[in-house]
Amino acid sequence: MEKKLKVGVIGATGMIGQHYLRLLSNHPWFEVAYLAASPSSAGKKYSDAVAGRWHMREAIPEKFRNIVVEDAGNVAKAAGKCSLVFSAVEMDKQAILSLEAEYASNGFAVVSNNSAHRGSEDVPVLIPEINPEHLDVIPEQQKKRGWSKGFIVVKPNCSIQSYMLPIYALIKAGYPIEKMVVATLQALSGAGYPGPSAIDLVDNTLPYIGGEEEKSEIEPRKILGKLKNGKFVPDESIRISAHCNRVPVTDGHTACCSIQFAGKKPEMSEVIGIWKNFTALPQELKLPFAPIPPIIYREEDNRPQPQKDRDTGNGMAVTVGRLRKCNVFDYRFIGLHHNTVRGAAGGSILTAELLKAKGLLG
Amino acid sequence: MEKKLKVGVIGATGMIGQHYLRLLSNHPWFEVAYLAASPSSAGKKYSDAVAGRWHMREAIPEKFRNIVVEDAGNVAKAAGKCSLVFSAVEMDKQAILSLEAEYASNGFAVVSNNSAHRGSEDVPVLIPEINPEHLDVIPEQQKKRGWSKGFIVVKPNCSIQSYMLPIYALIKAGYPIEKMVVATLQALSGAGYPGPSAIDLVDNTLPYIGGEEEKSEIEPRKILGKLKNGKFVPDESIRISAHCNRVPVTDGHTACCSIQFAGKKPEMSEVIGIWKNFTALPQELKLPFAPIPPIIYREEDNRPQPQKDRDTGNGMAVTVGRLRKCNVFDYRFIGLHHNTVRGAAGGSILTAELLKAKGLLG
Amino acid sequence: MEKKLKVGVIGATGMIGQHYLRLLSNHPWFEVAYLAASPSSAGKKYSDAVAGRWHMREAIPEKFRNIVVEDAGNVAKAAGKCSLVFSAVEMDKQAILSLEAEYASNGFAVVSNNSAHRGSEDVPVLIPEINPEHLDVIPEQQKKRGWSKGFIVVKPNCSIQSYMLPIYALIKAGYPIEKMVVATLQALSGAGYPGPSAIDLVDNTLPYIGGEEEKSEIEPRKILGKLKNGKFVPDESIRISAHCNRVPVTDGHTACCSIQFAGKKPEMSEVIGIWKNFTALPQELKLPFAPIPPIIYREEDNRPQPQKDRDTGNGMAVTVGRLRKCNVFDYRFIGLHHNTVRGAAGGSILTAELLKAKGLLG
Amino acid sequence: MEKKLKVGVIGATGMIGQHYLRLLSNHPWFEVAYLAASPSSAGKKYSDAVAGRWHMREAIPEKFRNIVVEDAGNVAKAAGKCSLVFSAVEMDKQAILSLEAEYASNGFAVVSNNSAHRGSEDVPVLIPEINPEHLDVIPEQQKKRGWSKGFIVVKPNCSIQSYMLPIYALIKAGYPIEKMVVATLQALSGAGYPGPSAIDLVDNTLPYIGGEEEKSEIEPRKILGKLKNGKFVPDESIRISAHCNRVPVTDGHTACCSIQFAGKKPEMSEVIGIWKNFTALPQELKLPFAPIPPIIYREEDNRPQPQKDRDTGNGMAVTVGRLRKCNVFDYRFIGLHHNTVRGAAGGSILTAELLKAKGLLG
Repeated sequence: MEKKLKVGVIGATGMIGQHYLRLLSNHPWFEVAYLAASPSSAGKKYSDAVAGRWHMREAIPEKFRNIVVEDAGNVAKAAGKCSLVFSAVEMDKQAILSLEAEYASNGFAVVSNNSAHRGSEDVPVLIPEINPEHLDVIPEQQKKRGWSKGFIVVKPNCSIQSYMLPIYALIKAGYPIEKMVVATLQALSGAGYPGPSAIDLVDNTLPYIGGEEEKSEIEPRKILGKLKNGKFVPDESIRISAHCNRVPVTDGHTACCSIQFAGKKPEMSEVIGIWKNFTALPQELKLPFAPIPPIIYREEDNRPQPQKDRDTGNGMAVTVGRLRKCNVFDYRFIGLHHNTVRGAAGGSILTAELLKAKGLLG
Repeated sequence: MEKKLKVGVIGATGMIGQHYLRLLSNHPWFEVAYLAASPSSAGKKYSDAVAGRWHMREAIPEKFRNIVVEDAGNVAKAAGKCSLVFSAVEMDKQAILSLEAEYASNGFAVVSNNSAHRGSEDVPVLIPEINPEHLDVIPEQQKKRGWSKGFIVVKPNCSIQSYMLPIYALIKAGYPIEKMVVATLQALSGAGYPGPSAIDLVDNTLPYIGGEEEKSEIEPRKILGKLKNGKFVPDESIRISAHCNRVPVTDGHTACCSIQFAGKKPEMSEVIGIWKNFTALPQELKLPFAPIPPIIYREEDNRPQPQKDRDTGNGMAVTVGRLRKCNVFDYRFIGLHHNTVRGAAGGSILTAELLKAKGLLG
Repeated sequence: MEKKLKVGVIGATGMIGQHYLRLLSNHPWFEVAYLAASPSSAGKKYSDAVAGRWHMREAIPEKFRNIVVEDAGNVAKAAGKCSLVFSAVEMDKQAILSLEAEYASNGFAVVSNNSAHRGSEDVPVLIPEINPEHLDVIPEQQKKRGWSKGFIVVKPNCSIQSYMLPIYALIKAGYPIEKMVVATLQALSGAGYPGPSAIDLVDNTLPYIGGEEEKSEIEPRKILGKLKNGKFVPDESIRISAHCNRVPVTDGHTACCSIQFAGKKPEMSEVIGIWKNFTALPQELKLPFAPIPPIIYREEDNRPQPQKDRDTGNGMAVTVGRLRKCNVFDYRFIGLHHNTVRGAAGGSILTAELLKAKGLLG
Repeated sequence: MEKKLKVGVIGATGMIGQHYLRLLSNHPWFEVAYLAASPSSAGKKYSDAVAGRWHMREAIPEKFRNIVVEDAGNVAKAAGKCSLVFSAVEMDKQAILSLEAEYASNGFAVVSNNSAHRGSEDVPVLIPEINPEHLDVIPEQQKKRGWSKGFIVVKPNCSIQSYMLPIYALIKAGYPIEKMVVATLQALSGAGYPGPSAIDLVDNTLPYIGGEEEKSEIEPRKILGKLKNGKFVPDESIRISAHCNRVPVTDGHTACCSIQFAGKKPEMSEVIGIWKNFTALPQELKLPFAPIPPIIYREEDNRPQPQKDRDTGNGMAVTVGRLRKCNVFDYRFIGLHHNTVRGAAGGSILTAELLKAKGLLG
């Protein structure tokens, strides 16, 4: 058996950090060897650093309890311990930009959960099934920024994963999409911890999530865009309008989508066939976190539902249902994914697996 | 003080029937003098008939406890007791069509909560602020059906009220709407009792409500349509596409709306002004259940919310918020109304008040 | 009509402060003339001070919107504006002790929602139906503390009101209680705002509320105690054991109670009769917030429930149900009250009404 | 590898039946070879029989989809297909008594989830860690009822498992318990499907579960009792008083317990030690469903919680926390278990494993 690749988690004590540890505890390729967080946690054993704020349902994995947490800002401490860091730090945008760049400049591959770098024109926003070729920017990113070995890759906002795979599958099959109106019903875990107050989510839903609609509209265009001269040029042929709601659900984002094709539209049966047969590079490479199949189509009228479908494919698959005609556009459907797995830590781990499979981790 | 008009409730023991009694208990114009339900309740005092299944938060109004419930099918029992009946019976479509017609043929004004007659081309589907002139069909309805005095008026489905007043206000102001995509987050009370199972709504939402999307798309066109030769001709210039979700909220339907105007579009400030200044016949006639103002615009990002806004205007107002540009259409906004008040019993009471004010109740 | 007494609210911008304003907006005896909060709110109009954090379902009462908020710590600002202040400040215990004492030493009657003074041996913890005679301590409190006119009265913890009236009614009827085991299911509003995180209360309950069990066990003994030589001597003849749980309910605390009488026990029918006929000084004095009757007994197996019973008596009554034999003690029953009305602001307003009726407000 | 024992599930289409199939789909000892349900399902493939009413989060196990469902009442159909049936039929008590007896008289071991036979004096109510010796009644049961090979064993009500292991561990360690007051917060799945209405469990809890308190008080005495002359004599030395509440939680019953020892009481540290070190026959026999350890003690103040602790030990362990002194009895603690696993199907499977390990399955 090959030796595992050593990885680190910065922002390891926060909720997304905890999800990373939960998901990496038995990873076949990666071994967590470096945990870092804010100075207040530095020097403590991980189990002490998260005492009273471990939010996962599973216990802290035994193997991580005694790792001494480092100060994430002290990049020197990571030297020699790992070659890739997952970034889940919770700081302001400027601080994240600097910190992630510092790790990269010190030779680390950085796979980030944060939105800070998503707008950087030389940083890929990756969904491994959709735009793996965006990794080709890495040499240019390194050259431009003067980094010899490190680089930065980020994952998109968790709100868009419920529909990006389904619409990409259609685009790839030759049916480009021109317009899309989507309304999401998003789970609480997407807001981090503590997130919204319980008293505001009993007998209630919230019609607003700060910044979410903008991200939902902009990020898909970058993901579907092209790399030209070391920069990503967004695909402006698709226009998305998003309404983002918060609902009293722990995990699992639902998206109600109405789509208009740019040209001819496929029959409904063809759409379902495209989804059922969709497969992509992560599946071909047999990446450990790649769900097979990546898209599940449910025939029942009342599916997908977050409670019942979020864990499909170990939380990495996207479940789709209710494909039907739309009075205004061509079709409507419902998409659902697990926002803290596929939409956050799990999606980043899949990206890291892709990096490794493509030989980008040295 | 004028003597109150005597009214009846058929289907008085069901949940909507209970809402009628709750809302009519202190009505300034109407006095409930006839209660009818299925044969199994007939002959019992109302308090006994609903024992163990009174679902309102308030106690059974004292004045109704001892009224003896009649068999709704025995229309003769209503004779002389009231001149208008609110219909909230829960039966199959054909049975409702017959029963409501029988009341009408016996001289009763019937204001119905049911969907059965909504498709009848000579029966008005009324939102009193929008299409009061549709009552002009009544003489034609009576003539065609051979009824001397009785008639049938119905209220629309509860899913559409969150946006019908806001879009009608714009249409009336000279801005017709061509297309609309709406996603609703609908409360449990809209499903009647018992409605969905609790275990399906904890940590969950449901992406489907049987028949609701069709009603949401068809009924607005009839309401906005014209009466021609004794028949309603739907307004086919507006196309609506609806996604209807069930969420764990007791009362209050939220609608996320994207709209495209047919012609020129107003500025956002003008839209808000139109909504804030909107008023209509029920307000001018000072009908007791007419909310003043009928539309409330909230400036906060995170409003309207069902828990906080459903009771506005005693549950009869529509609260709107988050007007903003749409990437695909012209604008987006959120609308909210109380589905068992404005959207059901309260809306029908407002219709009955309009009938009385227009001298249609004999 | 008599002129209203001017009152103030300190801590007016917090959630309990907001409840005070909601409940006092149409009070027949009191007029709010002074609002104070932390320095960060001082100088702002009330509507600006609570912008984005007004948590009541009703809008901010129009009459309070333009009142300029003062710095609660600058007691001089209250001079001449009111003679009583309701204290709902959120500070540490020592700071509250000082601030409330400063208001009292400056001549204000202080009716406090806070726990800080509940342990002070010369400060009455009042439930107006139970221990109005504890107000006799006021002259002694004033003398001891060197206050000429001001004084402090507090209300007990919100967890105990669901059972204190029911068990006091029995005690008063000649059936002293020796032991009681109670498990509460407490609403979220009892935790203030923001309180628990939504993600922790979806598909979950919490078995612990910090400090709540101790308060639930100690405060009843003081309330049932006697005033001797200027100090309250707790009633140690009753022993209470409390389990306090947090549940996903907005308002309304439920208590499952098992009681053992000290001596003979009444028949169950007698217990119910005692509860139904219970009345006390606030009812006799017709205090505006005194519920009539104060205790409601529901015969149905599945009542009381927070959603359906919390608003009984405008949120000031206690609803009791399910009286039955206990295998271990004498009887069991369920009690329920509205924790932010009877258990917090409403309870304090009733106390202030009692102070006024007894001529203690100058 | 030994050949698996063939088992059947009667009532296979209901919610508990579905849990059996979910839990048995990869069982190392048992193979499901017979599925039976009501006549309306008979003759259909299992996947068709449960179409639209499969309530598990996981899909129907592939291997069961095509099994043809038999009419449970036609016992002859089971002949030769299996030697043990798990009974999860939903019928009235008399019908269950007859049907289970008929399976037993036809030579099948019946392990039942139903309450029907719990009161039968020769039928053991089994918690495998507590009273495995109650299986000694089987020869006497067979003799008395004239059964040559079949027999009936039942599992107790799901409300009691949260405290039975913890109190039994103390009793076994030499600390008999005299009195116990328990208040439960029970999950929705305990009510079967559909169970309570969603609208009754949003912003609400229910203070009553029909029949549950009686079962919670009576069944522990039988489980802790002795077998004498072919009959179970309940242990009347323990008195339990139970308050049972329904809360909006999908799975996981919480119990707030106050206990009084009959004699001397252990120190708190000893209690915790007893729980942590508790082990019993199923653990010694390494039964596949036996959790190791069976009791988990959590040190945190706010544990156990249903959302976080129900899946401990694959849903078969009991999690305990908050051991503290009681003002009325000796100690208080919180217990929690997964009601559809340990408390229902999983508990019965553990019983079946014990039967096999003890050679009682022929």
